[in-house]
Amino acid sequence: MAEQKLPTRAEDFSEWYNQLVLRAELADYAPIKGCMIVRPYGWTLWENIQQGLDRRFKATGHVNCAFPLFIPKSFIEKEKHHVEGFSPELAVVTIGGGEELTEPLVVRPTSETIIGHMWAKWIQSYRDLPLLYNQWNSVVRWEMRTKLFLRTMEFFWQEGHTAHATAEEGEAETRQMLDIYTDFAVNDAAIPVIPGRKSEAERFAGAETTYSIEAMMGDGKALQSGTSHNLGQNFSKAFEIRYLDDKGELQFCWTTSWGLSTRFIGAIIMVHGDDQGLILPPRLAPYQAVIVPIWKNDEEKTLVMSAAKEIRTQLTAAGVRVKTDEREGMSPGFKFNDWEMRGVPLRIEVGPKDVAKGTVVLARRDKPGREGKAFVSRDGLATSVAKLLDEIHTALYDRALAFRKANTVETEDYTEFKKAVEKGFAFSHWCGSADCEEKIKEETKATMRCIPLDQTPSEGKCVYCAKAARERAIFAKAY
Amino acid sequence: MAEQKLPTRAEDFSEWYNQLVLRAELADYAPIKGCMIVRPYGWTLWENIQQGLDRRFKATGHVNCAFPLFIPKSFIEKEKHHVEGFSPELAVVTIGGGEELTEPLVVRPTSETIIGHMWAKWIQSYRDLPLLYNQWNSVVRWEMRTKLFLRTMEFFWQEGHTAHATAEEGEAETRQMLDIYTDFAVNDAAIPVIPGRKSEAERFAGAETTYSIEAMMGDGKALQSGTSHNLGQNFSKAFEIRYLDDKGELQFCWTTSWGLSTRFIGAIIMVHGDDQGLILPPRLAPYQAVIVPIWKNDEEKTLVMSAAKEIRTQLTAAGVRVKTDEREGMSPGFKFNDWEMRGVPLRIEVGPKDVAKGTVVLARRDKPGREGKAFVSRDGLATSVAKLLDEIHTALYDRALAFRKANTVETEDYTEFKKAVEKGFAFSHWCGSADCEEKIKEETKATMRCIPLDQTPSEGKCVYCAKAARERAIFAKAY
Repeated sequence: MAEQKLPTRAEDFSEWYNQLVLRAELADYAPIKGCMIVRPYGWTLWENIQQGLDRRFKATGHVNCAFPLFIPKSFIEKEKHHVEGFSPELAVVTIGGGEELTEPLVVRPTSETIIGHMWAKWIQSYRDLPLLYNQWNSVVRWEMRTKLFLRTMEFFWQEGHTAHATAEEGEAETRQMLDIYTDFAVNDAAIPVIPGRKSEAERFAGAETTYSIEAMMGDGKALQSGTSHNLGQNFSKAFEIRYLDDKGELQFCWTTSWGLSTRFIGAIIMVHGDDQGLILPPRLAPYQAVIVPIWKNDEEKTLVMSAAKEIRTQLTAAGVRVKTDEREGMSPGFKFNDWEMRGVPLRIEVGPKDVAKGTVVLARRDKPGREGKAFVSRDGLATSVAKLLDEIHTALYDRALAFRKANTVETEDYTEFKKAVEKGFAFSHWCGSADCEEKIKEETKATMRCIPLDQTPSEGKCVYCAKAARERAIFAKAY
Repeated sequence: MAEQKLPTRAEDFSEWYNQLVLRAELADYAPIKGCMIVRPYGWTLWENIQQGLDRRFKATGHVNCAFPLFIPKSFIEKEKHHVEGFSPELAVVTIGGGEELTEPLVVRPTSETIIGHMWAKWIQSYRDLPLLYNQWNSVVRWEMRTKLFLRTMEFFWQEGHTAHATAEEGEAETRQMLDIYTDFAVNDAAIPVIPGRKSEAERFAGAETTYSIEAMMGDGKALQSGTSHNLGQNFSKAFEIRYLDDKGELQFCWTTSWGLSTRFIGAIIMVHGDDQGLILPPRLAPYQAVIVPIWKNDEEKTLVMSAAKEIRTQLTAAGVRVKTDEREGMSPGFKFNDWEMRGVPLRIEVGPKDVAKGTVVLARRDKPGREGKAFVSRDGLATSVAKLLDEIHTALYDRALAFRKANTVETEDYTEFKKAVEKGFAFSHWCGSADCEEKIKEETKATMRCIPLDQTPSEGKCVYCAKAARERAIFAKAY
């Protein structure tokens, strides 16, 4: 309950974000540098994200499990790109039960290695394949420049790991999971994303191909919001994950991994939020609606609270996540602002006049002022609310998509390109060379976000070196 | 798919347990000594446990959140009993991002300290209370003598933490959570438990009072299956968790904590299992029913598989967790044994004759042979199955309770007592002295499990020292 006003996004987007996360009580800084605490409001949002994804994972045959927090240091060293990528970021346990350890333990930065080790033991024949695993946990990658949800030493995520008999199945799985992330972002979070392929420079340490979904934040920067890696046979060769095929011959498996983390909460905040605070997408919001009772005296209070209770019961029965703000000693106006800041998609106002008329006021978070207000009958309120929540979802998605389109420039001209990445995305032909990519990064701070999968092949000139290029890529400054 | 037979429980209970956990693919040993991998079958069981508890926690106003994995070492040292209890068991990170840390980080053994630290910052007034938090995670307590689920260095659990304005509320919360664990054990896991108070020696490090639920395993030993601690003001004083009361005076909070871990899976295995393998309680079993299709030729196969599919659809729609065993090249008999070993409560056999008659065979896991078999019409099968699953639940509970009663001796005679704790529980008057408790432990290996809350006060003589005693306690050898 802050007295001070939030900075506007135009004034200071970064500070707007930082203060909003704290004020809305989504998360807080831990007493250990680099770590965060996800507070109940933020964790409930994460639980709703988990449910949306977990349902999709299970519907496609995946099962959850739990591998240990600790990994022998020697495991990380078995795959050469993996060790290069992760060595500088490790947290290492050297003391256990009061004694120095002979082999130090690494706190997992990701679990490909230990899962690979166990698969080598469990997998015998092609009949055991595919293995479609997932786990929900936290991982640690050393990091001191904390930005809540976006950059923390410990973060929460799911890591999927699968093993297959053929290269084709491995690639199909990698793409399927990218599709699932895309579907989740669009249909649950109302976030338009661009699914695409990463460059070699931006690939996961140990992958053959990395795919990602990229979203545009409210300041025009990109946020990688989920990744899916085709690991080829890199890990199966490093860990000897083999199976007997139907001819009795020993073959290496093809493996994949894919993950989506609490970074995604950062995307939700930065895609939808406005200068008043959060705007949470209805299908993920901890509370989809908040009832604010309005009264001046005890008589009115009795009347209004009884109506509020009936409304809450009706909506809860219909599966709407609803809360009644019963706090004493606070004005309705204060409560309106407070829930606006916290991003609840729909406010339900109930005063004595509403009770008399059998109506309520519904106020949409995404449309401030009169435009977003409607007087609605209490008969069939659950239906009206469900319909309105769907409308809000669509409106949020449309707005974010329009914003991204307005801030994306398709260009082959480097001067125009440089201007484009100052305020959004450039969609430009790129020759594919790491050298051009690196130069662009040095000169503009923009990185190659992805080569969108959904593009019509076209001949053009690389925006940097002007050599022939057959694909367009998204370049942007990124979180 | 083991060739070898399981040892019987009578032959070697411990080895029966170890082999069963591996064969049923509930868990496996990790390449780090002391750690375990919970495999998909075991994790699905844990997910069902999580759902059963989480629903009860949320219905009583608790919210989930996530505090960091790492705790500054100095935090553990702030509460004097806490540091004594946990210091020898800590895993310590001394290297991060390639550098030696100035303050080593402890991997959380439990989170009272870091939560206390944050509450001191967040709690201002009595209006902020109570805080009713829970988190699902894993914790680490150094341990090398691994026994899957029962004794591992890393284990999975939930840890509840609450802060209150008064001592009465703190005690009420502690008891409420004990009741919730009891209700869950009885109604979801079909495990009869004894809720009671722990002795000072067995108390949580830093608690005023510890309560637990105790269950009798199939070998007569006790397993502590959940604990609830009234922490009084010990942690609020150590971490300065204070609030302004309604008179504007600064007061220390009263806090509690409570937890139930993957040990509970050990209880499920050891309470219900028999010489054929697991028997999973229907409300928690990953699969409540398995359909085994029986056929000899392609014509029969088409017929039977189509019936199996229809049955599966019917049961799934009714909310039954059901799997069809479609594995090729395995006899029905092999499949029967395999699913028996894995503890699926109900087997549904479908052969060509069944299809012709419009019936199936239902075979109960808890009643082997003819006694547990029934021929049932496919019309209304979902209703028959749901009813039967409830009957199995009740039968498992009744059997476990009868076993516990048969192996519990109420006695004030020490000779009889010593015989009782060789095969089960002794329920005996105890004077309350730590000295008698310690002597009993030395002489019999039995520990004071709990002072059951549900007992009629009675005057008696301490089973060890014969001094006056007003309460009876449960003594047993324990896991």
